[in-house]
Amino acid sequence: MTRVTVVNPNTSPELTDAIVAAAQRVCGPGVTVRGVQPSDGVPSVESHTEEAIAAVGVLDQVRRHQADTDAYVVACFGDTGVNAAREVATCPVVGMTEAALQTACLVAHRFVVVTLPARTVAHSDRVIRALGLEHRCRVVAVDVPVAELVGGSTHLLDAFAEAARTAMADDGAEAVVLGCAGLADLVGPLSEALGVPVVDGVAAAVGIAAGLVAMGLNTSRANTFAAVELP
Amino acid sequence: MTRVTVVNPNTSPELTDAIVAAAQRVCGPGVTVRGVQPSDGVPSVESHTEEAIAAVGVLDQVRRHQADTDAYVVACFGDTGVNAAREVATCPVVGMTEAALQTACLVAHRFVVVTLPARTVAHSDRVIRALGLEHRCRVVAVDVPVAELVGGSTHLLDAFAEAARTAMADDGAEAVVLGCAGLADLVGPLSEALGVPVVDGVAAAVGIAAGLVAMGLNTSRANTFAAVELP
Amino acid sequence: MTRVTVVNPNTSPELTDAIVAAAQRVCGPGVTVRGVQPSDGVPSVESHTEEAIAAVGVLDQVRRHQADTDAYVVACFGDTGVNAAREVATCPVVGMTEAALQTACLVAHRFVVVTLPARTVAHSDRVIRALGLEHRCRVVAVDVPVAELVGGSTHLLDAFAEAARTAMADDGAEAVVLGCAGLADLVGPLSEALGVPVVDGVAAAVGIAAGLVAMGLNTSRANTFAAVELP
Amino acid sequence: MTRVTVVNPNTSPELTDAIVAAAQRVCGPGVTVRGVQPSDGVPSVESHTEEAIAAVGVLDQVRRHQADTDAYVVACFGDTGVNAAREVATCPVVGMTEAALQTACLVAHRFVVVTLPARTVAHSDRVIRALGLEHRCRVVAVDVPVAELVGGSTHLLDAFAEAARTAMADDGAEAVVLGCAGLADLVGPLSEALGVPVVDGVAAAVGIAAGLVAMGLNTSRANTFAAVELP
Amino acid sequence: MTRVTVVNPNTSPELTDAIVAAAQRVCGPGVTVRGVQPSDGVPSVESHTEEAIAAVGVLDQVRRHQADTDAYVVACFGDTGVNAAREVATCPVVGMTEAALQTACLVAHRFVVVTLPARTVAHSDRVIRALGLEHRCRVVAVDVPVAELVGGSTHLLDAFAEAARTAMADDGAEAVVLGCAGLADLVGPLSEALGVPVVDGVAAAVGIAAGLVAMGLNTSRANTFAAVELP
Amino acid sequence: MTRVTVVNPNTSPELTDAIVAAAQRVCGPGVTVRGVQPSDGVPSVESHTEEAIAAVGVLDQVRRHQADTDAYVVACFGDTGVNAAREVATCPVVGMTEAALQTACLVAHRFVVVTLPARTVAHSDRVIRALGLEHRCRVVAVDVPVAELVGGSTHLLDAFAEAARTAMADDGAEAVVLGCAGLADLVGPLSEALGVPVVDGVAAAVGIAAGLVAMGLNTSRANTFAAVELP
Repeated sequence: MTRVTVVNPNTSPELTDAIVAAAQRVCGPGVTVRGVQPSDGVPSVESHTEEAIAAVGVLDQVRRHQADTDAYVVACFGDTGVNAAREVATCPVVGMTEAALQTACLVAHRFVVVTLPARTVAHSDRVIRALGLEHRCRVVAVDVPVAELVGGSTHLLDAFAEAARTAMADDGAEAVVLGCAGLADLVGPLSEALGVPVVDGVAAAVGIAAGLVAMGLNTSRANTFAAVELP
Repeated sequence: MTRVTVVNPNTSPELTDAIVAAAQRVCGPGVTVRGVQPSDGVPSVESHTEEAIAAVGVLDQVRRHQADTDAYVVACFGDTGVNAAREVATCPVVGMTEAALQTACLVAHRFVVVTLPARTVAHSDRVIRALGLEHRCRVVAVDVPVAELVGGSTHLLDAFAEAARTAMADDGAEAVVLGCAGLADLVGPLSEALGVPVVDGVAAAVGIAAGLVAMGLNTSRANTFAAVELP
Repeated sequence: MTRVTVVNPNTSPELTDAIVAAAQRVCGPGVTVRGVQPSDGVPSVESHTEEAIAAVGVLDQVRRHQADTDAYVVACFGDTGVNAAREVATCPVVGMTEAALQTACLVAHRFVVVTLPARTVAHSDRVIRALGLEHRCRVVAVDVPVAELVGGSTHLLDAFAEAARTAMADDGAEAVVLGCAGLADLVGPLSEALGVPVVDGVAAAVGIAAGLVAMGLNTSRANTFAAVELP
Repeated sequence: MTRVTVVNPNTSPELTDAIVAAAQRVCGPGVTVRGVQPSDGVPSVESHTEEAIAAVGVLDQVRRHQADTDAYVVACFGDTGVNAAREVATCPVVGMTEAALQTACLVAHRFVVVTLPARTVAHSDRVIRALGLEHRCRVVAVDVPVAELVGGSTHLLDAFAEAARTAMADDGAEAVVLGCAGLADLVGPLSEALGVPVVDGVAAAVGIAAGLVAMGLNTSRANTFAAVELP
Repeated sequence: MTRVTVVNPNTSPELTDAIVAAAQRVCGPGVTVRGVQPSDGVPSVESHTEEAIAAVGVLDQVRRHQADTDAYVVACFGDTGVNAAREVATCPVVGMTEAALQTACLVAHRFVVVTLPARTVAHSDRVIRALGLEHRCRVVAVDVPVAELVGGSTHLLDAFAEAARTAMADDGAEAVVLGCAGLADLVGPLSEALGVPVVDGVAAAVGIAAGLVAMGLNTSRANTFAAVELP
Repeated sequence: MTRVTVVNPNTSPELTDAIVAAAQRVCGPGVTVRGVQPSDGVPSVESHTEEAIAAVGVLDQVRRHQADTDAYVVACFGDTGVNAAREVATCPVVGMTEAALQTACLVAHRFVVVTLPARTVAHSDRVIRALGLEHRCRVVAVDVPVAELVGGSTHLLDAFAEAARTAMADDGAEAVVLGCAGLADLVGPLSEALGVPVVDGVAAAVGIAAGLVAMGLNTSRANTFAAVELP
């Protein structure tokens, strides 16, 4: 069994549960998914400030769960703390954003990232540029706070569909990346509404992380990500 | 069971067997790997001309195996025929090159692709640029023909290690991508010699392809990759 | 006399004739233009799959006409087979797409490529990115099949003019590249309608190819394009 | 008087004092420079993990000093916490890295960043890419820990000079950016040794920050950097 | 006292006076600003041709004022003559365009340049690309001639506000760069109307130039900008 | 007959004669080449300052020869004045640098520009970046002044061959662009010595310019290059 620990960077166990449930449904045999979140921190990550605070919580969770984990997934669009987690973790770490963007490249020539709220577009842009994918996608926002996702996100279906349809018409988008960890319940209804692939980054990251484990690949310790002990 | 068909674009069943054996060892539970190759075509793919001929053979194999396949992997560095295969296949298609490059991004800040022979560096450059990864890697070559890989590639260990070490010293490479389908037997000895992750694209692609199937994702039919019938 | 052979990658001799007639009108003295097309293959190139099939036909035509040709032009937007043809041909090879894009750069700060059908936008994007010209142009489509061009394309004048005018207003386009080989009869009426340069890639490629011959330049055999014998 | 608060992200008051003393010497009239550092955190920032921890300390210091500050400078190569600080601060925030890179662009066609230790090259790369300056510079490292800078850095003069000279010879570098906050005492001797401009990012940032204040410019609150209250 | 000489590349002393007056209001203590312009040349710079003529005048003014100048600012959007002036001047030279773009990067994730007239958009694009900032901004134009700015530019407030608002809505712009030297009187009313930072490049350049002087930084003489005597 | 006027931006009629003689040898039938140069200006263009002065001379020559010219070629590596000349000329204008770079792209995957003297590398970089070709080539210099070319450049054969061979070995260059107008006599001996294509930009530009005339293409007057009268 490959044990993947999904680290939800915010402090909401409800969101953790929803994320894990969604990931479990698509993770394939031989993989177990567990979710954790910081006890202290921020209830949601919607700014650079909240990213900074949440990153420390991610690292603490990574340290705590080393013994019984084969890979970590960080479940926050923007991949807060992922590079640091690569230094602290003794096993591979995959961000949901990088996983989502890489996955979308495999099923579409161009795609759109629909994130929320509007102020976090720059966070998506940062990961896109780190991966060099500016020519493959564009980021748009449905401008509602993350708090709206408590209890599910299907009430946002129309808003997401409209944002995606505009990108499909104006920008040649052929697939959709959901730009937040709490949107997995939109995958089905949105792909049905649009007729194009809809990617949930957590699910993508869990599969990719399990693949790294199967191949025996871990973060390179050669230089940038040499092991670091949390102080 | 997720059934992944690996399409070897050249006509060598021996290479197909070696590729499949290597992929099976790391593909995780729940995945079966089968290999196929064209009956007509080229014995190896070492030029644009051979890529062109091989691409047609890839498409023919894709058409033949639709009924009992959940995903295809194209096992040629340079990903010849992959975009066309996405149009013909009724299921997802992953190229070994894109899979290898994406995987290396998750375990290293910078990496080196060691390909062969020297004249195919431009083929790697093409996929790297399509993915926007010029800032993350560089391509070097061990200038031997693919024919040298018949019977295994471990005799090339020193040549690969030297090429990789130069890239690590001069270019900040922290991981190695093997730039050919027949090099999986180098993964172990080379990673041991260098102490950094070594990525075999076929193994990476099989895992990623199985992940796409698990998530229910297929190539977008919206525009670029709308279904095409082979004439 | 410089003898330029225009290879039409599809199997339509009528299209070959139209392409050649248009190129002859603007090729300048000292250049003769002849057209050829594969006997087997696809009637039009509107997908990656058709590109793959057509590329093999291009190579076969290149092989057949070496004795009496000083340069080849490949007349398909997307430049299918051009890099392979550079390996097989004993003389220079120019793609209509690269020629059109380079030409547009010399007469405009920004320009628009109007291609058809919509699913081939990615094909234009590929050549644009290989040449590094993303900052100089954008691709839009008139979504009709190539079959509509049988008998001429002037009935598409309004559609092309509208697409170009939108790009001129929204994107700063100052010139138009016609994104298909069968559109040369639009050059005159469209440039008259818009008042900006309209570039037909076949004509541009013929002139550039003749220039290479005059300078005694041939494809470098140093590495990437070292000579390859068709099997 | 324009009051600039320099936030040293690590916990060393000695480093803060050295940084502030150097900045005061070049800040021009009408500007006062004060230094602060977190009481809790890390003694130096040499990894993504330490960046994550230090960023929270930066934000805390920004919150504490709002009342008597006109602008903040974050004094850590890599600009940890700068974007978050822009949300928390009521006044402008400038990172020493972005300031150094921008300054070097004004005095040289190409330049080299000499940072330390080697594992932080990726941190410099991140800021360079965010600013789009990959074509203007390259990062090299003198591989010593930050702890070596306690008591001054002039003992590293030869190592920095050699790294810079190599970049000048091989890469066309015409100026040097010092890639760490504690290196200001190298500016004089290194520029004398090399005969080219040597940029200390803290000094550059203080001047630029004072300029923002003089112009009445503050961080845009329109979207990305809308004000955030620290929890 | 740091003596900054602002070189207005066109021949209008009225524009010089307006530029200098605006810059003096925001240049901070310890800096004196003086303006000069060529006696021969062009009344405004609205084309590449006028840039070419104006550049020679800039160089002549730079030569004339070396004795009593500590830094030069070139006050023309497009930075005509700036690189040449770096060779001729014995002190630092800053272009208003590069200064404005760098400044905007410090206060906004994305921004818009509003220039005039429309034909000069390519001039802004040139500086943006030289600095690598295509991913941070876009250029739009208010299509009026520079002659409209005689007597002030506040009558263009509505046009600039509309152009900026469109960019804020469609392109995520969060700040505005004024794309002409004669627009400083728009800074106040436009920033009030829009609620976002508005950057005047001359003011930005004066502060940055004074900062270079304070740090003792001058143009590198290593290679590209080695001193040149005007013939 | 297509009449191409080659404008040598420096004041040396000897260089003009050499350039024209070389271009005539390869321009193909139907093209006549004439050379002109400014009466006032600089004896060579080896700095931004000399570029600025020479650009004005280029424009003056363009104005003088409109009546009997069908296209202009500007014969200075760096393409000084080309964009302005496009506004002034009533016919197409081609720079030798853009022509050389475009031509090299058609015969090689990667190439090297060998320019002189070393301080002008930035001038080549500027044109390369404007065309987006950073991924296809690199610029190196043979550091001798242009004055060395009086009387021919074949004495520089060894220096150019060594620079090119280094780029071929280290950087994958497969062709050479000669980075100065006075180097046409190196084309033959250098291509013979290296066995790869060697491109003279003036010859390339003459052919391309004649092609534009044959196609009836002129600079777009839509916006950026709308006609400008020299004052």
